[in-house]
Amino acid sequence: MPSRKGIIMFDQCLENVRKLVPLVHNITNYVTVNDVANAILAAGGSPIMSDEPMDVGDITSICGGLNINIGTLNVRSIEAMHIAGRRTNELGHRLLLDPVGAGASQLRTGTALSLMQELRFDVIRGNVSELKALALGSTATKGVDADAADAVNEDNLPQMIGFVKNYAKSCGCIIAITGAIDLVSDGGKCFVIRNGRKEMSTITGTGCQLSGIMTAFLVANPDDLLQAAAASVCMMGLAGEIGWSYMQKGDGNSTYRSRIIDAIWNMDGNTLEKGADYEIR
Amino acid sequence: MPSRKGIIMFDQCLENVRKLVPLVHNITNYVTVNDVANAILAAGGSPIMSDEPMDVGDITSICGGLNINIGTLNVRSIEAMHIAGRRTNELGHRLLLDPVGAGASQLRTGTALSLMQELRFDVIRGNVSELKALALGSTATKGVDADAADAVNEDNLPQMIGFVKNYAKSCGCIIAITGAIDLVSDGGKCFVIRNGRKEMSTITGTGCQLSGIMTAFLVANPDDLLQAAAASVCMMGLAGEIGWSYMQKGDGNSTYRSRIIDAIWNMDGNTLEKGADYEIR
Amino acid sequence: MPSRKGIIMFDQCLENVRKLVPLVHNITNYVTVNDVANAILAAGGSPIMSDEPMDVGDITSICGGLNINIGTLNVRSIEAMHIAGRRTNELGHRLLLDPVGAGASQLRTGTALSLMQELRFDVIRGNVSELKALALGSTATKGVDADAADAVNEDNLPQMIGFVKNYAKSCGCIIAITGAIDLVSDGGKCFVIRNGRKEMSTITGTGCQLSGIMTAFLVANPDDLLQAAAASVCMMGLAGEIGWSYMQKGDGNSTYRSRIIDAIWNMDGNTLEKGADYEIR
Repeated sequence: MPSRKGIIMFDQCLENVRKLVPLVHNITNYVTVNDVANAILAAGGSPIMSDEPMDVGDITSICGGLNINIGTLNVRSIEAMHIAGRRTNELGHRLLLDPVGAGASQLRTGTALSLMQELRFDVIRGNVSELKALALGSTATKGVDADAADAVNEDNLPQMIGFVKNYAKSCGCIIAITGAIDLVSDGGKCFVIRNGRKEMSTITGTGCQLSGIMTAFLVANPDDLLQAAAASVCMMGLAGEIGWSYMQKGDGNSTYRSRIIDAIWNMDGNTLEKGADYEIR
Repeated sequence: MPSRKGIIMFDQCLENVRKLVPLVHNITNYVTVNDVANAILAAGGSPIMSDEPMDVGDITSICGGLNINIGTLNVRSIEAMHIAGRRTNELGHRLLLDPVGAGASQLRTGTALSLMQELRFDVIRGNVSELKALALGSTATKGVDADAADAVNEDNLPQMIGFVKNYAKSCGCIIAITGAIDLVSDGGKCFVIRNGRKEMSTITGTGCQLSGIMTAFLVANPDDLLQAAAASVCMMGLAGEIGWSYMQKGDGNSTYRSRIIDAIWNMDGNTLEKGADYEIR
Repeated sequence: MPSRKGIIMFDQCLENVRKLVPLVHNITNYVTVNDVANAILAAGGSPIMSDEPMDVGDITSICGGLNINIGTLNVRSIEAMHIAGRRTNELGHRLLLDPVGAGASQLRTGTALSLMQELRFDVIRGNVSELKALALGSTATKGVDADAADAVNEDNLPQMIGFVKNYAKSCGCIIAITGAIDLVSDGGKCFVIRNGRKEMSTITGTGCQLSGIMTAFLVANPDDLLQAAAASVCMMGLAGEIGWSYMQKGDGNSTYRSRIIDAIWNMDGNTLEKGADYEIR
């Protein structure tokens, strides 16, 4: 255990974010966009939002990474995703896809697959139903939340690790499936992460926030993207645990939402390193 | 009193939401959308947002109800409202209109009336100025907030009950006017609800949140839509009372906003049943 | 000092907002729009958002002022900015520009300059990098946050005061640059304001909120726009100081964001008058 943690150095990943203050361009949905911005700021990055085709080329050029979230996609923003994604690839910046609602509509599934065909993503991060929809063509997605029947659990863990590894190999990028158990793999290793709390699913946007934060981690840690992605997943889950510890009588999902971002804001490398709960398979 | 409450069973309405976890499609404004999502989650539903004409047909098909809120309407989203509304009607799903700012601009009034002409709504929910603008062609709306001169009070209550009942009959759907006193009628009975606090008007979006929650209540309680609508109005007002009871020195409208959603998250059927303050006229 | 404060009467500026409840039309970005609405409500105004070209003419006509914020501009909203801006000028209403991200993209810089060419603004309010980009054609803006190299500090204060005064003269309107030290000038006098805390920069949208609040102050205090603008800047910074005093263990930027709006909601004229920390140069 000590040696494993010695190698991974999640604390360094976070400290690099705080040191570099990476600019992250977000083309994201208008539901959770404010939380994404404050979560990136809490983690130590600097967020910019722009989804106008005529604007995104310039904006993405001054950033270190682009977070594409298809949560409330429209014809205009889809065009902007392609333009900004191409520019990001040309510049060799980091690129992440959050396929919100893939499987729930043809436009969402088709847009995600079309972006994946054209662009080189560093990470695709979503819930298990979204990733299954993209990988297997399933369309059983129950809206923007994962279908309970799809959930990663201790019983299906070996198969799900296999699925994630295979899909990562097939896509040529890191796949991050988040839920009760999170899986993050580049096709070789797979991080199995058990941070977090079930109550996080009663807040909108913790996944969107994670995608924004993860992009900041990727930008600040270009030499080990898998480690950076896993560190950000652990941090989000750990923030959910720490945030919950401050909940008092009368508090509910709205206060919890603030408490999680607060916990990110207060987290230091040492807390992350000690609190990260994962194994590598 | 006991017999009346025995018939209405608001507790059952809420418990049905928690049991069914109804998916609610929202075409709503970008000002209050995050609160709408968290309020629906707090009540026990599952929110999805989509306003792209090419996306809304699929999205609304997997949901049980559609909440159309014209708060920051644009040409694209208006088209999406019509497409999604037609599909919702075809599928026999629940349909609610929140005519934000009707009376404040020709586009808003015209869009609301055009939607009402084409679609069968289960409920139209707004403030008194918006409903008057739609019913009477008045254009005295003071922005998106009700004009004080229009407010329902104890003096004009009988006339206002008459207005709501008549307009409900004329529209063939439930009309819900919310404010200091809330009126909810299907043209026959009229619920007169006195839950809530005046400070709720210093937070943006409590009406929008109620429309989202009400749609979840309608989906989960298809056999008595009037009861479901009234239960959700009582719950929102009661959450405003409970949330206020947690306010401390230095707290203001932003903390109050969180406290109200928190109170929805914590509310159980028994609390709602006991705290609901209404009469039927 | 007493005589100076006796002349300025910031308390009266705030009380006028509370008395008039000015309607403010906001064409603003979807990142911080909810906070802008709640901040305007907290200050005593009434916010309306609309960015559809077919809607904005009517909406701006019933308001007393228009706040144009280019934070997530798109082709449609840019058209709406011009239409609404012209109508605002025709009606002699108050008009404010918040050139978010000017310097970060050609579209943003160009849109801001084009609006400034066509319209008569009462105030242009931004961070120092944005204002330098507009005034000097510099394009070194680091995203939507001010570049540290541009910051106003005690060393460059005399030059920066000169810059602001000259640019205000050249634009024929009030220029407000906000940051660690805020400068507000009409070309004659320059308010140098030292309210606020550095932690405010770890929250998205305090600048956007200020632009909304400032517009409400301008509408309610038409006889001394410079005083009104300076009063709103002091109020925002003072709210940052008061909000911080309520921070507890475990709190971070998300809770701080609420605390600031809460402090605006609770602020009275006397608190503002006593807490305002400024000099006139």
